Amino acid sequence: MHIQEFQEMMKKLYFHRDSARGVKGNYEWLMDEVKELGEALEGINKEATEKEFADVIAWLASLANVVGVDLEKAALKKYPNKCPKCQNAPCQCKF
Amino acid sequence: MHIQEFQEMMKKLYFHRDSARGVKGNYEWLMDEVKELGEALEGINKEATEKEFADVIAWLASLANVVGVDLEKAALKKYPNKCPKCQNAPCQCKF
Repeated sequence: MHIQEFQEMMKKLYFHRDSARGVKGNYEWLMDEVKELGEALEGINKEATEKEFADVIAWLASLANVVGVDLEKAALKKYPNKCPKCQNAPCQCKF
Repeated sequence: MHIQEFQEMMKKLYFHRDSARGVKGNYEWLMDEVKELGEALEGINKEATEKEFADVIAWLASLANVVGVDLEKAALKKYPNKCPKCQNAPCQCKF
Protein backbone atom coordinates (compact mmCIF):
# COMPACT_ATOMS: atom_id res chain seq x y z
CA MET A 1 0.00 0.00 0.00
CA HIS A 2 1.25 3.48 -0.85
CA ILE A 3 2.13 5.77 2.05
CA GLN A 4 -0.50 8.15 0.68
CA GLU A 5 -3.18 5.43 0.66
CA PHE A 6 -2.34 4.48 4.23
CA GLN A 7 -2.66 8.12 5.27
CA GLU A 8 -6.03 8.31 3.46
CA MET A 9 -7.20 5.17 5.24
CA MET A 10 -6.29 6.74 8.59
CA LYS A 11 -8.23 9.83 7.56
CA LYS A 12 -11.32 7.81 6.73
CA LEU A 13 -11.08 5.87 9.99
CA TYR A 14 -10.10 8.56 12.45
CA PHE A 15 -10.20 12.11 11.09
CA HIS A 16 -13.46 12.98 12.89
CA ARG A 17 -11.77 12.06 16.16
CA ASP A 18 -8.24 13.29 15.41
CA SER A 19 -9.33 16.72 14.20
CA ALA A 20 -11.33 17.21 17.41
CA ARG A 21 -8.26 16.24 19.47
CA GLY A 22 -6.12 18.90 17.78
CA VAL A 23 -2.44 19.04 16.86
CA LYS A 24 -1.05 18.99 20.40
CA GLY A 25 -3.29 16.11 21.48
CA ASN A 26 -2.34 14.03 18.45
CA TYR A 27 1.34 14.77 18.91
CA GLU A 28 1.15 13.58 22.52
CA TRP A 29 -0.46 10.31 21.36
CA LEU A 30 2.30 9.87 18.79
CA MET A 31 4.92 10.43 21.47
CA ASP A 32 3.23 7.86 23.74
CA GLU A 33 3.28 5.32 20.91
CA VAL A 34 6.98 5.96 20.26
CA LYS A 35 7.66 5.33 23.96
CA GLU A 36 5.64 2.10 23.81
CA LEU A 37 7.69 1.05 20.78
CA GLY A 38 10.84 1.65 22.83
CA GLU A 39 9.51 -0.57 25.61
CA ALA A 40 8.54 -3.31 23.15
CA LEU A 41 12.03 -3.22 21.62
CA GLU A 42 13.47 -4.08 25.03
CA GLY A 43 11.41 -7.28 25.12
CA ILE A 44 11.50 -10.40 22.99
CA ASN A 45 7.92 -10.43 21.71
CA LYS A 46 8.18 -9.71 17.98
CA GLU A 47 4.41 -9.53 17.46
CA ALA A 48 4.11 -6.90 20.18
CA THR A 49 6.95 -4.95 18.55
CA GLU A 50 5.23 -5.13 15.16
CA LYS A 51 2.03 -3.76 16.68
CA GLU A 52 3.92 -0.81 18.13
CA PHE A 53 5.55 -0.08 14.76
CA ALA A 54 2.02 -0.12 13.29
CA ASP A 55 0.80 2.32 15.93
CA VAL A 56 3.66 4.75 15.37
CA ILE A 57 3.12 4.97 11.61
CA ALA A 58 -0.66 5.17 12.17
CA TRP A 59 -0.37 8.10 14.59
CA LEU A 60 2.21 9.79 12.39
CA ALA A 61 -0.27 9.58 9.49
CA SER A 62 -3.09 10.84 11.73
CA LEU A 63 -1.00 13.79 12.86
CA ALA A 64 -0.09 14.56 9.24
CA ASN A 65 -3.82 14.54 8.41
CA VAL A 66 -4.57 17.02 11.17
CA VAL A 67 -1.92 19.49 9.99
CA GLY A 68 -2.58 18.88 6.28
CA VAL A 69 0.79 17.37 5.37
CA ASP A 70 1.11 14.75 2.62
CA LEU A 71 3.43 12.26 4.31
CA GLU A 72 4.47 10.49 1.10
CA LYS A 73 5.25 13.71 -0.76
CA ALA A 74 7.19 15.05 2.23
CA ALA A 75 9.15 11.78 2.57
CA LEU A 76 10.08 11.58 -1.10
CA LYS A 77 10.94 15.26 -1.32
CA LYS A 78 13.55 14.87 1.43
CA TYR A 79 14.62 11.31 0.49
CA PRO A 80 14.50 11.07 -3.34
CA ASN A 81 16.40 7.79 -3.46
CA LYS A 82 19.59 9.40 -2.22
CA CYS A 83 20.91 10.80 1.06
CA PRO A 84 19.78 14.44 1.51
CA LYS A 85 23.15 15.29 3.06
CA CYS A 86 25.80 13.63 0.89
CA GLN A 87 23.59 13.05 -2.21
CA ASN A 88 24.89 9.48 -2.45
CA ALA A 89 23.12 6.11 -2.46
CA PRO A 90 24.19 4.39 -0.30
CA CYS A 91 24.92 7.31 2.01
CA GLN A 92 28.60 8.13 2.44
CA CYS A 93 28.25 10.75 5.16
CA LYS A 94 31.06 10.78 7.69
CA PHE A 95 29.72 10.45 11.23
CA MET B 1 5.50 4.80 -3.23
CA HIS B 2 4.57 1.75 -1.19
CA ILE B 3 5.54 1.76 2.48
CA GLN B 4 7.58 -1.36 1.72
CA GLU B 5 9.45 0.34 -1.13
CA PHE B 6 10.23 3.33 1.08
CA GLN B 7 11.61 0.97 3.73
CA GLU B 8 13.71 -0.79 1.06
CA MET B 9 15.04 2.56 -0.13
CA MET B 10 16.08 3.41 3.43
CA LYS B 11 17.77 0.03 3.63
CA LYS B 12 19.74 0.66 0.45
CA LEU B 13 20.75 4.14 1.61
CA TYR B 14 21.50 3.57 5.27
CA PHE B 15 21.53 -0.06 6.39
CA HIS B 16 25.34 -0.25 6.55
CA ARG B 17 25.28 2.66 8.98
CA ASP B 18 22.06 1.82 10.85
CA SER B 19 23.01 -1.79 11.54
CA ALA B 20 26.33 -0.64 13.02
CA ARG B 21 24.47 1.84 15.25
CA GLY B 22 22.24 -0.90 16.67
CA VAL B 23 18.64 -0.94 17.89
CA LYS B 24 19.12 1.40 20.85
CA GLY B 25 21.09 3.94 18.86
CA ASN B 26 18.50 3.99 16.07
CA TYR B 27 15.64 4.26 18.55
CA GLU B 28 17.31 7.29 20.15
CA TRP B 29 17.62 8.96 16.73
CA LEU B 30 13.94 8.26 16.06
CA MET B 31 13.03 9.81 19.40
CA ASP B 32 15.13 12.90 18.61
CA GLU B 33 13.35 13.28 15.29
CA VAL B 34 9.94 12.99 16.97
CA LYS B 35 10.97 15.77 19.37
CA GLU B 36 12.13 17.93 16.44
CA LEU B 37 8.75 17.33 14.79
CA GLY B 38 7.08 18.56 17.98
CA GLU B 39 9.18 21.74 17.89
CA ALA B 40 8.42 22.32 14.21
CA LEU B 41 4.68 21.93 14.89
CA GLU B 42 4.89 24.83 17.32
CA GLY B 43 6.19 27.09 14.56
CA ILE B 44 4.60 28.37 11.36
CA ASN B 45 7.09 27.06 8.81
CA LYS B 46 5.23 24.36 6.90
CA GLU B 47 8.29 23.30 4.88
CA ALA B 48 10.27 22.73 8.07
CA THR B 49 7.37 20.70 9.46
CA GLU B 50 7.23 18.57 6.30
CA LYS B 51 10.96 17.85 6.59
CA GLU B 52 10.47 16.65 10.16
CA PHE B 53 7.60 14.37 9.13
CA ALA B 54 9.97 12.97 6.47
CA ASP B 55 12.67 12.38 9.06
CA VAL B 56 10.32 10.58 11.45
CA ILE B 57 9.05 8.11 8.84
CA ALA B 58 12.62 7.67 7.55
CA TRP B 59 14.00 6.80 10.98
CA LEU B 60 11.00 4.59 11.72
CA ALA B 61 11.75 2.67 8.51
CA SER B 62 15.46 2.49 9.41
CA LEU B 63 14.67 1.15 12.86
CA ALA B 64 12.31 -1.42 11.33
CA ASN B 65 15.14 -2.51 9.02
CA VAL B 66 17.50 -3.00 11.93
CA VAL B 67 15.04 -5.22 13.84
CA GLY B 68 13.77 -7.00 10.70
CA VAL B 69 10.17 -5.77 10.81
CA ASP B 70 8.18 -5.23 7.61
CA LEU B 71 6.56 -1.87 8.36
CA GLU B 72 3.85 -2.16 5.70
CA LYS B 73 2.84 -5.67 6.71
CA ALA B 74 2.76 -4.68 10.38
CA ALA B 75 0.69 -1.56 9.63
CA LEU B 76 -1.88 -3.39 7.51
CA LYS B 77 -2.11 -6.29 9.91
CA LYS B 78 -3.15 -3.97 12.74
CA TYR B 79 -5.11 -1.51 10.54
CA PRO B 80 -6.84 -3.57 7.81
CA ASN B 81 -9.09 -0.69 6.72
CA LYS B 82 -11.00 -0.75 9.99
CA CYS B 83 -10.38 0.27 13.57
CA PRO B 84 -8.59 -2.55 15.46
CA LYS B 85 -10.64 -1.77 18.58
CA CYS B 86 -14.25 -1.29 17.41
CA GLN B 87 -13.87 -2.97 13.98
CA ASN B 88 -15.69 -0.06 12.35
CA ALA B 89 -14.71 2.33 9.55
CA PRO B 90 -14.92 5.13 10.50
CA CYS B 91 -13.99 4.25 14.06
CA GLN B 92 -16.84 4.47 16.56
CA CYS B 93 -14.86 3.88 19.73
CA LYS B 94 -16.06 5.80 22.73
CA PHE B 95 -13.30 7.89 24.28
